[in-house]
Amino acid sequence: MSPESLLELLTAIQQGATTPREGLARLAHMPYEDLEFAKIDHHRALRTGLPEMIYAAGKTEEQLVEIFDRMAKGGENILATRVSPAAAAAVRARLPAVTYHAVARVLFLRQQERPLRPGTLAIVCAGTSDLPVAEEAAVTAELLANKVARFYDVGVAGLHRLLAHRAELAEASALIVCAGMEGALPTVVAGLVRAPVIAVPTSVGYGASFGGVAALLGMLNSCAPNVAVVNIDNGFGAACFATSILARADRPE
Amino acid sequence: MSPESLLELLTAIQQGATTPREGLARLAHMPYEDLEFAKIDHHRALRTGLPEMIYAAGKTEEQLVEIFDRMAKGGENILATRVSPAAAAAVRARLPAVTYHAVARVLFLRQQERPLRPGTLAIVCAGTSDLPVAEEAAVTAELLANKVARFYDVGVAGLHRLLAHRAELAEASALIVCAGMEGALPTVVAGLVRAPVIAVPTSVGYGASFGGVAALLGMLNSCAPNVAVVNIDNGFGAACFATSILARADRPE
Amino acid sequence: MSPESLLELLTAIQQGATTPREGLARLAHMPYEDLEFAKIDHHRALRTGLPEMIYAAGKTEEQLVEIFDRMAKGGENILATRVSPAAAAAVRARLPAVTYHAVARVLFLRQQERPLRPGTLAIVCAGTSDLPVAEEAAVTAELLANKVARFYDVGVAGLHRLLAHRAELAEASALIVCAGMEGALPTVVAGLVRAPVIAVPTSVGYGASFGGVAALLGMLNSCAPNVAVVNIDNGFGAACFATSILARADRPE
Amino acid sequence: MSPESLLELLTAIQQGATTPREGLARLAHMPYEDLEFAKIDHHRALRTGLPEMIYAAGKTEEQLVEIFDRMAKGGENILATRVSPAAAAAVRARLPAVTYHAVARVLFLRQQERPLRPGTLAIVCAGTSDLPVAEEAAVTAELLANKVARFYDVGVAGLHRLLAHRAELAEASALIVCAGMEGALPTVVAGLVRAPVIAVPTSVGYGASFGGVAALLGMLNSCAPNVAVVNIDNGFGAACFATSILARADRPE
Amino acid sequence: MSPESLLELLTAIQQGATTPREGLARLAHMPYEDLEFAKIDHHRALRTGLPEMIYAAGKTEEQLVEIFDRMAKGGENILATRVSPAAAAAVRARLPAVTYHAVARVLFLRQQERPLRPGTLAIVCAGTSDLPVAEEAAVTAELLANKVARFYDVGVAGLHRLLAHRAELAEASALIVCAGMEGALPTVVAGLVRAPVIAVPTSVGYGASFGGVAALLGMLNSCAPNVAVVNIDNGFGAACFATSILARADRPE
Amino acid sequence: MSPESLLELLTAIQQGATTPREGLARLAHMPYEDLEFAKIDHHRALRTGLPEMIYAAGKTEEQLVEIFDRMAKGGENILATRVSPAAAAAVRARLPAVTYHAVARVLFLRQQERPLRPGTLAIVCAGTSDLPVAEEAAVTAELLANKVARFYDVGVAGLHRLLAHRAELAEASALIVCAGMEGALPTVVAGLVRAPVIAVPTSVGYGASFGGVAALLGMLNSCAPNVAVVNIDNGFGAACFATSILARADRPE
Amino acid sequence: MSPESLLELLTAIQQGATTPREGLARLAHMPYEDLEFAKIDHHRALRTGLPEMIYAAGKTEEQLVEIFDRMAKGGENILATRVSPAAAAAVRARLPAVTYHAVARVLFLRQQERPLRPGTLAIVCAGTSDLPVAEEAAVTAELLANKVARFYDVGVAGLHRLLAHRAELAEASALIVCAGMEGALPTVVAGLVRAPVIAVPTSVGYGASFGGVAALLGMLNSCAPNVAVVNIDNGFGAACFATSILARADRPE
Amino acid sequence: MSPESLLELLTAIQQGATTPREGLARLAHMPYEDLEFAKIDHHRALRTGLPEMIYAAGKTEEQLVEIFDRMAKGGENILATRVSPAAAAAVRARLPAVTYHAVARVLFLRQQERPLRPGTLAIVCAGTSDLPVAEEAAVTAELLANKVARFYDVGVAGLHRLLAHRAELAEASALIVCAGMEGALPTVVAGLVRAPVIAVPTSVGYGASFGGVAALLGMLNSCAPNVAVVNIDNGFGAACFATSILARADRPE
Repeated sequence: MSPESLLELLTAIQQGATTPREGLARLAHMPYEDLEFAKIDHHRALRTGLPEMIYAAGKTEEQLVEIFDRMAKGGENILATRVSPAAAAAVRARLPAVTYHAVARVLFLRQQERPLRPGTLAIVCAGTSDLPVAEEAAVTAELLANKVARFYDVGVAGLHRLLAHRAELAEASALIVCAGMEGALPTVVAGLVRAPVIAVPTSVGYGASFGGVAALLGMLNSCAPNVAVVNIDNGFGAACFATSILARADRPE
Repeated sequence: MSPESLLELLTAIQQGATTPREGLARLAHMPYEDLEFAKIDHHRALRTGLPEMIYAAGKTEEQLVEIFDRMAKGGENILATRVSPAAAAAVRARLPAVTYHAVARVLFLRQQERPLRPGTLAIVCAGTSDLPVAEEAAVTAELLANKVARFYDVGVAGLHRLLAHRAELAEASALIVCAGMEGALPTVVAGLVRAPVIAVPTSVGYGASFGGVAALLGMLNSCAPNVAVVNIDNGFGAACFATSILARADRPE
Repeated sequence: MSPESLLELLTAIQQGATTPREGLARLAHMPYEDLEFAKIDHHRALRTGLPEMIYAAGKTEEQLVEIFDRMAKGGENILATRVSPAAAAAVRARLPAVTYHAVARVLFLRQQERPLRPGTLAIVCAGTSDLPVAEEAAVTAELLANKVARFYDVGVAGLHRLLAHRAELAEASALIVCAGMEGALPTVVAGLVRAPVIAVPTSVGYGASFGGVAALLGMLNSCAPNVAVVNIDNGFGAACFATSILARADRPE
Repeated sequence: MSPESLLELLTAIQQGATTPREGLARLAHMPYEDLEFAKIDHHRALRTGLPEMIYAAGKTEEQLVEIFDRMAKGGENILATRVSPAAAAAVRARLPAVTYHAVARVLFLRQQERPLRPGTLAIVCAGTSDLPVAEEAAVTAELLANKVARFYDVGVAGLHRLLAHRAELAEASALIVCAGMEGALPTVVAGLVRAPVIAVPTSVGYGASFGGVAALLGMLNSCAPNVAVVNIDNGFGAACFATSILARADRPE
Repeated sequence: MSPESLLELLTAIQQGATTPREGLARLAHMPYEDLEFAKIDHHRALRTGLPEMIYAAGKTEEQLVEIFDRMAKGGENILATRVSPAAAAAVRARLPAVTYHAVARVLFLRQQERPLRPGTLAIVCAGTSDLPVAEEAAVTAELLANKVARFYDVGVAGLHRLLAHRAELAEASALIVCAGMEGALPTVVAGLVRAPVIAVPTSVGYGASFGGVAALLGMLNSCAPNVAVVNIDNGFGAACFATSILARADRPE
Repeated sequence: MSPESLLELLTAIQQGATTPREGLARLAHMPYEDLEFAKIDHHRALRTGLPEMIYAAGKTEEQLVEIFDRMAKGGENILATRVSPAAAAAVRARLPAVTYHAVARVLFLRQQERPLRPGTLAIVCAGTSDLPVAEEAAVTAELLANKVARFYDVGVAGLHRLLAHRAELAEASALIVCAGMEGALPTVVAGLVRAPVIAVPTSVGYGASFGGVAALLGMLNSCAPNVAVVNIDNGFGAACFATSILARADRPE
Repeated sequence: MSPESLLELLTAIQQGATTPREGLARLAHMPYEDLEFAKIDHHRALRTGLPEMIYAAGKTEEQLVEIFDRMAKGGENILATRVSPAAAAAVRARLPAVTYHAVARVLFLRQQERPLRPGTLAIVCAGTSDLPVAEEAAVTAELLANKVARFYDVGVAGLHRLLAHRAELAEASALIVCAGMEGALPTVVAGLVRAPVIAVPTSVGYGASFGGVAALLGMLNSCAPNVAVVNIDNGFGAACFATSILARADRPE
Repeated sequence: MSPESLLELLTAIQQGATTPREGLARLAHMPYEDLEFAKIDHHRALRTGLPEMIYAAGKTEEQLVEIFDRMAKGGENILATRVSPAAAAAVRARLPAVTYHAVARVLFLRQQERPLRPGTLAIVCAGTSDLPVAEEAAVTAELLANKVARFYDVGVAGLHRLLAHRAELAEASALIVCAGMEGALPTVVAGLVRAPVIAVPTSVGYGASFGGVAALLGMLNSCAPNVAVVNIDNGFGAACFATSILARADRPE
């Protein structure tokens, strides 16, 4: 039931062509999804500032180019994750303005500039192997208008490197900590800060790491109470979740 | 927004106290959940014939008695599954009219008689160990107004017993086949019939049966195309699913 | 023992060449599998309308061409699933009349036209990643003479899209709901309809989706009672199972 | 090296009894852990407002009484989780001022009143089985000085109940969503709000729920980007993590 | 169709009361399961020497007494496994002639004496923890008329004890080797003999033994080619399988 | 200590050059492994008839050619499993007398003819997908001097095909039954015969077949007592185990 | 063949009653296990200092008393692990000299005093829940004549407590580090020392700790290269392994 | 705080420009990580003799060349594991002095010669498939200045080959035992020696070996008390751990 037809009904009631009881009966079967749709539109308006997002894994280069191109016409920022270099090149051939982060495997098109929201998001990982996940988180978070600080050489087997950044870590509004293998880094970091720590297990490792399961279990069992976990290698999701923290709905940005 | 307040609004429009446009604005923010609730009530009316259902596992005897008693006042049939003998006795002390199936661990109160719907639901299992699950399915299905035929001594390691009932099985409108251990029975049965076979893995077994996982996997990998699976030991769910087949929504009962 | 030889035996008894007791002795050792075979033939006759089916995964192009060609001579409809584009091309080179659904990876040859049976099968999925599985189900179901309605953009993270189709979903005779990742869609859909919902977990996802296991477990644990589950990515099986529901053996088609 | 001995060293340098270079050498080997300890004390002072916390599972009644009693002397609020009724009674016999939440299995002693921090924490679950976990989260969060709003009858198989609370949910600063079985509730809730959703899988279920693993996997694979997950049944941890969000370190409380 | 009614039919043909074609039609629908049943009976006669078998786990004492009593009337040997001492006492109260092996948890009633078949079955295990499984195998095998030789103190961490029995092991016709923990014993034994080794993983162990799964996997991956495996703790099944080897169907006993 | 040096020692004792006590001391430290080695050689002589065996997976073509060539010089039969066509061609280039079974992926060189031992080994599988494993078993068994009977089109979803071979199956001395997916075939076959059934799970399937784990678990949980199991896809091992049954060590061949 | 009979044989050769060749033949079949046994005895003599060890789990009180009593007669130290208080009391009733560590669940009888070997074994754990495992390790190690230093309040979520003991940890010859939940402690400790770290996962935790599996995986994937792992809760094994390090076979004690 | 600035502070105190209390306050907030860094440097000096190590898996050839080249300038030995032949060739093109072990997949540059430490490290495996892991351990250990003895043809299914090396094994100071499939070799070896046995599961196997999990579980459940385990295929880690044993920190090298 469109607003038009609803108005038509109400007008009919006003004009006596329909009784209130008849109107009630019709409204009782009114497909609320149309109202719902209106709400959703309003909701989306509130959300302005979020880029359109594409999960590129499993899509052909042609499909990716097509989707990117169509979305670009909307004028919004667009972010695609898990993009291969070849796919990125294919999109750029159509849309020369796109930017590709090879390490993060992220491709984006910035069509809107938005001010950074207050607070800093720290992104922490141990070494070069976790970089693709950490950078997926970092680049996504930056595109989502967060200020990002990177701490990338701080594994638990050499605590001094981590402790050297203790003060900076403690000042972050939220932290994303990526770790593979035994996944202990988020717990150790969480013991050094008061802010929420979003743990991202990575699939880095071999043998009994089971593609990141060991790290995932380690993080779920963290003895630190300010740790929550997202899926293996889900740097993108961690950045979105962190944004939902920094952009607290109940506080004006 | 209750029907009363909605009627009030429409009457205000009729009487000119509110314009249609004002009414539209209020309705646009109308909590559809109230309309929804009305629909649900209507929906439930359509469903008449279904008993109220209680999953008793993890509830104290006191809680079960309380819930049963409250529901009983609604005048509907009530079915509780996974009921211990002690809990059943406690409910009966309050509501002497309840019936308890010790093997099925099902307790019910029949306050409404309804005619059986057409078609037969065959319930098949191999032996005595699977009986609690098979009977949970059978008793639930009977209370849901289905005609039930039981085939309870027909394991795959002695095919002749199963084959002896081939004709009867082939006449069933749907079949629930319960099996533990290797869980092969649904596949073999499905090869003998055209009707849908609902496979119920049971937790019967030990060692590498892993509490029914071996049977569950066997059924999910069935090479017969007319098999679908429910959760381990979920006789109740199988009966409900079978009822949704026998009571095809698109055909008048 | 063929019908001919059995008739011969009975005639010999009639003519006194064999005594009834001798006949009994011979029949007692009669290989029932021949009788069985006869029954099977009769059974197959009843089944007319089903296409021949081929699971192409793991077969070479040569094998597939050969099987398709041999089956085609039988004059029946033929359906092959999990067919690569190259294999499809190879079959088409031999049998130009075949049709290939690239998304569904389904190849078929329609040699018989059959009327659609009554009732509608709704096929529901969240997004483009689940399309190969959903289309395997849809194309198979259509070839199996069912009327199919597709609902393909209705994920649970944006409920309004699903709710917009609520009325149509409620009218379906059975529903196939495909979902990867967390696999919540079948449960939510099942709460909106009375008909049986066949849940198909897909291997869409990464990390802790474990190739569809997360979705599979979610569906097996559905809190909705009208859900049953088939194997991961088994769109074909879901279509067959749905057909067994729509073509209820106990009702004339 | 205690502050006293450090002061002694510095005084010796001031007085010329030790040269700066000698002091440097001694300080280079100074056990920083003592300095560290001082920092920690200061850190704890900053944290004032947090109760002392005890995980009671696996502790004898005697141990629990002893720990509670000793902590009580510190004058702080004390919170113990997973406390059996018998253990709670034992503590109360010693400390009559303690309060016991039987459903949440939480025992606490409030010795300090603190003002609630701004923002509301919504706690959502589907039904009575998840209540122990949801209440563990709620009671913990309240003791941690958060305003809590409970939404406890809103399972995904009956969407209208959830949708009825949509506006209230959307106003929460953070949400804790507990669910067992298929664990779909956090995803559906996350689609309705912008705030961070902390998903808590519960061990409610049977068979293929594997003690909460099915729900855990479902939540980790959520298709909603504002979901993070804690351990199975970890209501306490969810409340602590939510507090770390509401009490953003970078904003004055 | 019983032999009597079949004879009746054939006689009717002989007497001209039924034509051969009519007979053919009736026979085509003749429930072969009755013929089947006859064969089965004959089959069972061939099997004489096997006791009746009962898996007592999950049966109440009353059920066990009832089943035992009923079977006893058949005059056959009866063997029940996984019998608790209390259940054994309950059966003995009814049937004083039964014998109970407390370690093997086996209860049996010997009503038939049969000569031992040729060949020796060696039963091997490492220590006292595996004894219940090893004895279940040994007692079952003895009741199944096999000559059994026990080797019970021969773990792989002290090879000399195993090697001391090398000659005797090499003479066995088949070997059952029970092992928990790492389950290496069957492989080592298999390297010393030419006969088939039936490996029985036991649930002995803790932690990463996962109730026998570690031993099971070890045995399935044995690098010795004369090893096959049965379910965890399945001493009974191993004895039956060994009997099927010693009583080779193709050789007269 | 070689036999020569041992003889030397004994001769020295005989001749008085060494006292018995000195000899005892030397023998007490005698490396028994040399004696052992002698025994082993003798043992191997007893085993004559077994081919040399090579597991080719993970070996380069060069390595395989080298090993084959070296072994060939010993004059024995040689059997290599898991051989790719390319590797087979490489070996044949060096040793033109080798035979390659493409389906079984088995390459062998027959340099010795040996009479078949008595008894028949039945090899059973459901369809074309299981053929590589079944043929690996069959070809290996034939090379190990067993008479093999193949039954290759007998899946449990169409029982009549299996039952048609019932008599032949019952006459086999041992049976190897290969099955993927739900792995029910060995159980059903075992219910039809008295001989030992060696179950071989195959990795045929997809989704929840988990590369053969579903079939493996089904077979380990078989309700038939004459079933034992080998590793997934281990047709070779099944043939060796069957040979250890047919060539019962305690009976002269 | 006992030394006596071997001497007899050699004497017969010396005396000409047996020829060297005949002696060779007899020796070639000499059961080396007797020689072996002699070596073992000698080996055990070398090992003097090790107590006899009993794994009490799964043994009845009667069995434990019996074994303890029998071993005590040998005059050696005796150590039993996993002993319940009741079982300990039962043994003490027979052998009043035994000592019981209630936390470690270890019961021992010291009949021999031995000097401590050089070097210190550090035993590290995070908190009270891990104490049973840590103390099982500590008490076992002490009985095995090692000097033990305990560090029991040093979890990774509060690094300062661990760092406070850094110097002492660095001086240990070997370290046993017990941890449940996420199991990160061994990795962090290993980053602070050069000595070997033996990681013991404990079953402390709930939910996704899976009875210690999360900790086990974390330790196996440790990014520190001086970590090796024993079974879950295996404090006893860790102590034995550490002893094998401290008592290096190649260095005189 | 650098040593320079610390010296400056102390000098200010000496000169009276700063009071000792002011100095104390500044030092209390002194970032210990700088002191820490100094210690670390000292620590590293103590460790001299260790090569720099690179885990090459997942690094591009370019990255590997770059890292190798940069490290080489430090003058230390450099060891890279999991290096493909192509990557090795790429490094050699830049640094012709590197050595590549093709089987071990290890690439190293020896720039420092160091004397072997006392004691022998035995490296044991069953066959050619485990060689890459065993050689990774051996080559690493040699570069870490250990004397290595290899025992590479000693599988448990042919004990005589293992027993032939018993004396040599017993003399080793530590043993690394690599095994795939059932992983029994470490247990059997550990029963023959007193020294610590480091078990390395390898991913050799198929089917239910699950990429080394079967071997891993077998080793964790070893019934020998002198066994500890590292990750699957972690030959490198085993060598490092063994080095930590042979280079006991508490004993001068």
